[in-house]
This record gives sequence, C-alpha cells and structure tokens, in this order.
Amino acid sequence: MNGEYRAFWVNEEGYVEVIDQTKLPFIEETIVLKTADDAIVAIKDMIVRGAGVIGNIGALGVYLAVKEEADIKAVVTKSKAIRESRPTAVNLMWAVDIMLEALLNAQDDLLEVARKTAIQICDEDSERSSKIASYGADIFEKIMQEKGKTSINVLTHCNAGWLAIVDDGSALAPIYELKRRGIDVHVWVDETRPRNQGANLTAWELTQDGVEHTIIPDNTGGYLMQQGMVDVCIVGADRVSANGDVANKIGTYLKALAANDNNIPFYVAIPEGTLDFDIRDGVKDIPIEMRSEDEVKYIRGLNKEGVVEELLITPKTSKAVNYGFDITPARLVTGLITEKGVCATNEEAINNMFKLNV
Amino acid sequence: MNGEYRAFWVNEEGYVEVIDQTKLPFIEETIVLKTADDAIVAIKDMIVRGAGVIGNIGALGVYLAVKEEADIKAVVTKSKAIRESRPTAVNLMWAVDIMLEALLNAQDDLLEVARKTAIQICDEDSERSSKIASYGADIFEKIMQEKGKTSINVLTHCNAGWLAIVDDGSALAPIYELKRRGIDVHVWVDETRPRNQGANLTAWELTQDGVEHTIIPDNTGGYLMQQGMVDVCIVGADRVSANGDVANKIGTYLKALAANDNNIPFYVAIPEGTLDFDIRDGVKDIPIEMRSEDEVKYIRGLNKEGVVEELLITPKTSKAVNYGFDITPARLVTGLITEKGVCATNEEAINNMFKLNV
Repeated sequence: MNGEYRAFWVNEEGYVEVIDQTKLPFIEETIVLKTADDAIVAIKDMIVRGAGVIGNIGALGVYLAVKEEADIKAVVTKSKAIRESRPTAVNLMWAVDIMLEALLNAQDDLLEVARKTAIQICDEDSERSSKIASYGADIFEKIMQEKGKTSINVLTHCNAGWLAIVDDGSALAPIYELKRRGIDVHVWVDETRPRNQGANLTAWELTQDGVEHTIIPDNTGGYLMQQGMVDVCIVGADRVSANGDVANKIGTYLKALAANDNNIPFYVAIPEGTLDFDIRDGVKDIPIEMRSEDEVKYIRGLNKEGVVEELLITPKTSKAVNYGFDITPARLVTGLITEKGVCATNEEAINNMFKLNV
Repeated sequence: MNGEYRAFWVNEEGYVEVIDQTKLPFIEETIVLKTADDAIVAIKDMIVRGAGVIGNIGALGVYLAVKEEADIKAVVTKSKAIRESRPTAVNLMWAVDIMLEALLNAQDDLLEVARKTAIQICDEDSERSSKIASYGADIFEKIMQEKGKTSINVLTHCNAGWLAIVDDGSALAPIYELKRRGIDVHVWVDETRPRNQGANLTAWELTQDGVEHTIIPDNTGGYLMQQGMVDVCIVGADRVSANGDVANKIGTYLKALAANDNNIPFYVAIPEGTLDFDIRDGVKDIPIEMRSEDEVKYIRGLNKEGVVEELLITPKTSKAVNYGFDITPARLVTGLITEKGVCATNEEAINNMFKLNV
C-alpha cells in the first residue's frame, strides 16, 4: 500500500469525507457526505469515481442510510437508489448487496453492523489492491527481463489508481509497487476524453507519488506502440464478463487493438468483484452508460487568473454523443491481474480461478 | 464543387487572404498574407492547415516572394524556407517544386508566371476534389445498396474538407456529393485532439453546409463500430508512401484498426500529389512532426462571456508529448479514392494507376 493516500475516509463525526475528484488537479478539496442522497449525488456527478471507490461509497452510502433512517424498509429503498446511481461498474451492485445481506441478517445495532461491513469492504479492497500490485509488478519485471531492459514504459488509460480503488488502485498498483522496488518506470498517461481522468487524475496521482509520466492525447498511443515506445499496457475495468470481455472507459478497446497489432502485452487489473458471472457475452450484453453531451462540448480547466472555468469547445449548434465505456473483447487481453493471481481471459480459466475455488 | 466556400483567395491588391482556422468555429476572421514570411507563419502556426491548402499557400507564398523580391536567388531562398515550414505533408514540397521549376524556366514577367502557376495548382486541386467527390460518392452508394440502406453513417477523423483542400476537400468531398445527390448522410466527427480540427473545423464546415453530424471524443469510434453504427470510414492523408502506407493526423491508425476488426471499409481520399514514390516503407520512413506540448496542456474555447480563452487542462508540472501524425499500414486501408479512380493500397496497383500512366 502507498499508505499515505486515500480517496475517502470516515471522519470523526461518523460521516464520509471524500476528495472532490471533479476539481482535481486544480483544486484539492474534500466534501462531507452526510446522507445516502449525498452519496448518490457524489457517485452520479463523479465527485467520486472509479469502479472500486464507487463500490466503497455505495457501501458507505448504505451505512449513511442506516445512520439517518430508523426503518430498515427505508434503508432498503435508499440502498436500491444507490445501487442504480451508475449502471456499468458491477462493484457498486456487489457492494450494496453485501451491505443489504449483512443488515437483513443482523440481530441488533444496525448502525454498527453497517459501519463494520462497509469498512470491511474497503479494507478487503485495500488487501486486494496490494496483491494486484505484487502480481502485476512481477509480470512487469519479467517483461523487462525478457527484453533485457532496466526500465519500463507503461501505457494506461483513464484512472485506476488510488483515487479509484483503495489503496494502490488496480492498474496503477503494479506501477507503485515497481517504484517501491526501486525500478525505473515511466507512464504514458492517456488524457482520456471527454472527462480527462488521465490528464486530471492519473497525472495528479503520479505527481503526488513522484512517478515519472507523460500525458498524451488519446490518439497518440497507437503511434507510440508502432515505434516501440511502449513495453506494456495496463488498465482497470468496470465490469468483466464470464468469458473475459472487459468493459472499461471508452477508448480502451482502441488501445487493446493497437497493442495486439504490435505484439505488446495488454493487461487488465481487477479485483474479483469486477467479474460478472451472469453475463456470458460482454460485447453484446454489458450495459453501457450514455452521459450528457455537455461533457464533450464543454471542458474544465484553469484560466490565466488561476480560476477554474468551463469553455465551449465545439460549434454551439453541433450535437455530440458521450458513451462512457466500451468493450474490449477477451481475445485482445493478455491476462487479468487479480488478487488471486494472473488469469487468462476465457471462461474456463476464469471459472477455475474464481468459481471452483469458492 | 460546393462552389460557395474557399479557405483562401487572392484579393484585389494581389495579396493572399485566408480564413484564420485557429479561431474557428468561434470567430470567423480572415488574415491577409503580404509576404513569403507571412505565408510561412500561416503554415507553421496552422492559420491554414490541411495537406492541400498547405500546398496551395506554399505555392502562393512563392508568388508572394516574387512579388516582394526582384532577385530570383532571393526567391529561391524564401521558397526553400516555405518548403520546410512543415515536414509531413508532401503537397507542400510538391507545390513549391512546381513553382520553382516554372520560375526557373520562365522567359519574362516572373510575377505573372508565379501568379498563373499558383492559381493553376489551386484550380487543379479543385478539379481533383470534384473527381474524388464523385468516385467516393459512388462507393458510398454501393455500400448502402449492399446493406439495403437508404442512409449512411460515415466516420471521419480530423478535417479534410474545403478548409483543407479546395473546393470540396478530400475525405469530406464524397459526403458533400452524396448530399447533392439527395442522399441522407450522417457524419460521426472525431473531435481530433489535441488541436480539435474535427470539433472545430469539420463540425463547422458541416454546419455551414447543413450536413447532419455528431461530434464524438476520439475514444468513441471503436465502440460505435462494434455496435454497427458506422457504415464506412473516410479520412484524408498528408503523405502516402509507394507501398500505400498512410500518414495522417495522429489517431487515424487506431480507427483503421477498429474498422478492420469490425469489417467496416476504411477509405483514404487523396489527390495524386499526396503520393510519395521516394518512400517505399511509410511506417518506417515517413517523417512525423513533433509539435509543442502546450497544444496538449492548454485548450482554446469560448467562455461564458463569449470570449475565446485558453485553459490549462493538466497538472502544471506534468509533461506532455504531441506527435502530429501516425502511419496507417497499407493492409488496413480498403482503398485510396483519388482523382484517377479508386486504387488498392499496394505498390503494384499504385504504380499501375499513377506511374505507368504518366
């Protein structure tokens, strides 16, 4: 674990305090969530985002519902609303379901059960993150050895660091671990339009931890791979189907195609909760969130006076469309890096590692 | 020809007037180029851009050099500087070379020779554009027929319309022609980071001509193709090597990979001058321009007060990198749409259509 940074915590009053990720990297500010509705807004408006943290705030949102509601029925209703606040990341549904099961089976002191269960979900994510860090770093070291290199160039898309999953993240976890092992690592950071989670969050995270990195337009990765400037790609995921298809931030599929075309390993780092065994064909059946066109037409940044401002960057009358995710077919993924080890992206291997061991 | 719009013209005083493409779509403003140095600045700063128009302004820049310099040696020196003002688009070198040849062979009245030759280069581009429009529209109609559709969804990257090549452009030419033929066409416009030529120029052009379109982040095209929402892709090019490899705006390669993965035709529309017979392996040997990282770190748009402003959109201390182009290997291109017809992307077919017919 990087041990220093978390995207959220329970404060002294028992409320949930989160880093406002919509303001990064320009303003470092926290927001206190006092109610389940606050948690829903935080998830919907992407004040918190990233598959893991969405699940954590989902769980803590149920805890906040218990804190404000005496009646378990009201808690269940609020929990369902939390569960539906974003559609693609399966961790959210998974975490809320664990919370509800614990509450419905609880004998007494619902609030204590809710608090403990939510914290446990987060702590378990942290343990998973640390195992992903270790398995991933081992793979990266092996790639370096095979190439006879003493440094490594990693390309990542969107943000799957500690702002997305406590404590090291998923995709960034092996990078942080490599750095702890004293290895020279450089990260190509896809800016990740339209919301620029790469340029805004990943670059900020890597800056905090002193990891060398270069921001690139999403268009650039293919050229870098053609020119031998990328040793490995790694991304997180919002949902992985039983056959190994990967739903992740829109644009991931294009990088996986380029990696495949240039024989560059393409890994997806996920905790087990990201697997959705109910979906057998991810390309066809994983639901893809469509967000507001304004996220494409307007952009936020820092003006010359140091004030965060929003600009229109298209003709006013032009339409835009904003799909949040795409699906990378299993055939383009070298492996899933999970807390249980590295798994091939096919139904048999996934079943062997996760279902048969339950 | 759309007949109404041009990116530049020679004004009554004999100077060259251009639409300032760095200000579109927010401010519609022209700039008058009076000297060869003005032309160089216009090309370097992308006041004019697009392979064809760069060539045209290159030719007209030589004409401006003749206008200001009595001495042919000085004209040659200025012409060389124009020739080197941007490295990737071969049209620029080609046009300047034609101008110099005409001037060195001229008997008298260099200015008139320069004016006539430059205008002829532009007029010939216009004829080529109109033939590309027609060949391309025929292909698009065939695609519709084969699919049994009465409308067509076209995806394009960057801007290869009349702001890039007189009068209809290259990649957009078949789209304008389809519209003239009364066919229902919708264009997916890649915003084309970092300079957003798609969101700023293509969307603006299509708005002027009333062509239905939707702006998408560069990350989105792969998903649209997976979901059957794209019938054909078409782009322009800055240079095509003898073996059919295509240098075009960074990110083109990623869309070609996605088209190939989803069995969607991927066409490249070019006038003959874009072919570079001296380069046999485009992936290895076409020079790629590296531009300022500030084009990635800062973005221009319209603020709430209606003023064009620039914002920082990354952490201040993070580095960025800005390659202007990538290379799409010939194997990913369905065909070149040229003024001589549609050509397969291999050395033999290209030779047959262009070299043996000379």
